[in-house]
Amino acid sequence: MQYGIIGSGSWATALAKMLTDNGHTIFWWVRNAETITYMEKRKHNPHYLSAAYFNPQQLRLSSDIHEVVAASEALVIAVPSAHAEQVFGQLVPAELTGKKIISAIKGILPTDNQLLHEYLWKHYQVPVDQYFALLGPCHAEEVASEKLSYLTFSGKDHASAEAIAKDFTTEYINTVVNDDVTGVQYAAVLKNIYALGAGIAHGLEYGDNFLSVYIANSAKEMVGFLRQLSETETQPAVLTPNYAASAYLGDLLVTCYSLYSRNRTFGNMIGKGYSVKSAQLELNMVAEGYYAAKCVYRTNQTVKALMPIASTIYEILWNHRPAADGFKKIEGVLV
Amino acid sequence: MQYGIIGSGSWATALAKMLTDNGHTIFWWVRNAETITYMEKRKHNPHYLSAAYFNPQQLRLSSDIHEVVAASEALVIAVPSAHAEQVFGQLVPAELTGKKIISAIKGILPTDNQLLHEYLWKHYQVPVDQYFALLGPCHAEEVASEKLSYLTFSGKDHASAEAIAKDFTTEYINTVVNDDVTGVQYAAVLKNIYALGAGIAHGLEYGDNFLSVYIANSAKEMVGFLRQLSETETQPAVLTPNYAASAYLGDLLVTCYSLYSRNRTFGNMIGKGYSVKSAQLELNMVAEGYYAAKCVYRTNQTVKALMPIASTIYEILWNHRPAADGFKKIEGVLV
Repeated sequence: MQYGIIGSGSWATALAKMLTDNGHTIFWWVRNAETITYMEKRKHNPHYLSAAYFNPQQLRLSSDIHEVVAASEALVIAVPSAHAEQVFGQLVPAELTGKKIISAIKGILPTDNQLLHEYLWKHYQVPVDQYFALLGPCHAEEVASEKLSYLTFSGKDHASAEAIAKDFTTEYINTVVNDDVTGVQYAAVLKNIYALGAGIAHGLEYGDNFLSVYIANSAKEMVGFLRQLSETETQPAVLTPNYAASAYLGDLLVTCYSLYSRNRTFGNMIGKGYSVKSAQLELNMVAEGYYAAKCVYRTNQTVKALMPIASTIYEILWNHRPAADGFKKIEGVLV
Repeated sequence: MQYGIIGSGSWATALAKMLTDNGHTIFWWVRNAETITYMEKRKHNPHYLSAAYFNPQQLRLSSDIHEVVAASEALVIAVPSAHAEQVFGQLVPAELTGKKIISAIKGILPTDNQLLHEYLWKHYQVPVDQYFALLGPCHAEEVASEKLSYLTFSGKDHASAEAIAKDFTTEYINTVVNDDVTGVQYAAVLKNIYALGAGIAHGLEYGDNFLSVYIANSAKEMVGFLRQLSETETQPAVLTPNYAASAYLGDLLVTCYSLYSRNRTFGNMIGKGYSVKSAQLELNMVAEGYYAAKCVYRTNQTVKALMPIASTIYEILWNHRPAADGFKKIEGVLV
């Protein structure tokens, strides 16, 4: 399979490392021509994961997205979810005909509150069985240092998902395959809400006992949402998802317990009493969990799962509910 | 209800704090008479949780266990599991007639690989409906500093469990009640095995991605064991246990992610290549997970749950399986 990578951030670079470590030659769309010149000469990405070195003979770098798309059978999409619509906006539907799309996007496209496969079906007529979601608890830095990680490839076309997973399996990457395309993608969105909430709890000076109970109850709330979500789907997973697996509970744990994540840092400031606006100004960023909270809140208007934790975090972030008051409510629902 | 506390370690002291903060006057068996003299004069335990101060008028301290047992309607048993048989050995069955037993013991009594309620039924004819297991992710230090924690009271007599839980509920303790007496006690044993394994993984230099996947899969293995265990019981829980609750998943998380636990420290040395014997000599202790691994291994001869993680940790600890080799096997079962 000829792979093309769209994006040049740390996750794109980690995925390029896996494929090239497996002997693949890849097409790689890097928007900035100067970055390409640097990478060809110095054999690594100057901006992200710079410890990962490449054999230049395995890289076909190009700043022309049309060239990369045309040359590839399978496109690995690794751009921030907020930029995905702009990136695809450069393409016409015919360019994607017959291509496999492997989404490494973590999050929802903002305009219509859609997952990438919903967006691609609506605007590019890419059928869901050409689509594969690639998720898991996988800090790019640990991939660079070749610490063992687990990736889940989720697709309706089981044989292709297996084949793609095999191409990413290395000494330091174990892979898992399932067909819960919507579920794994929502799990990746939900975890950011709960991780942001863990940051708020820390800012409010709750301790480790509370944090563990909060995360355990969040795991249950997440599974409740995913189960109910699958009932609203036209093409739900055939195989019963293992919600304790790496792409669900594993990813929730690594994100909630990561001390250095943006969600944790951002949440911590909210817990300390900063407004969203001032936390954003101070940190010069907004955490993923902030948008995720709104996205899930909107989706749950239809799904109607019981989500007292996520909806309280939504109220804190979007409706000016004081963090301490919100967590008093959360205290009461935890068991 | 007149409470008596048996034991004077940090957990006993934390439980005494909860009851006295709620206005109870308690009988308290402290073996060492000098400690009693100190506590009466200085209003705190000299050896454990010394930041927790007591009102001496609420304490009836005694080094005579018969006196404390005779005066109490409900006995809170908070001695190490390895000492429990010796402590009860001082009593005759008639002394326990009609007493409620609230077990704060985390672990199995070593002689017959029994939980405390099994031991008390066999040797003292204490019926299980007078027995309550008190468990949860509750570092005693966080109780002393009044950080919110969750305790689960598990008993077959639901009304009494509720009443007892109420007596321990304070501003910093939320309580949960269920009837899964055997399950919660085994969860507390199992978590130590997985936490010791997390320490081994750390010693073997696995990273955060792997750790989260390992813990998530351990949670599933634990639930599988508890479900199958309940089928072997003569009086299983009537209410379906919520395995994501604080006493199950919550306690597993806080124990596995605690950087300073004995399980973690001990496991880390095993992962670094120390033998059990030399780790024990070096640290001057053996972690709970070491005994727990054997206990669960033996119980699982009957329960017959699939436990590739726990049984591999057992092999590493008790059968000289090299840690790196054991974890290669565990890598292969994680998803």
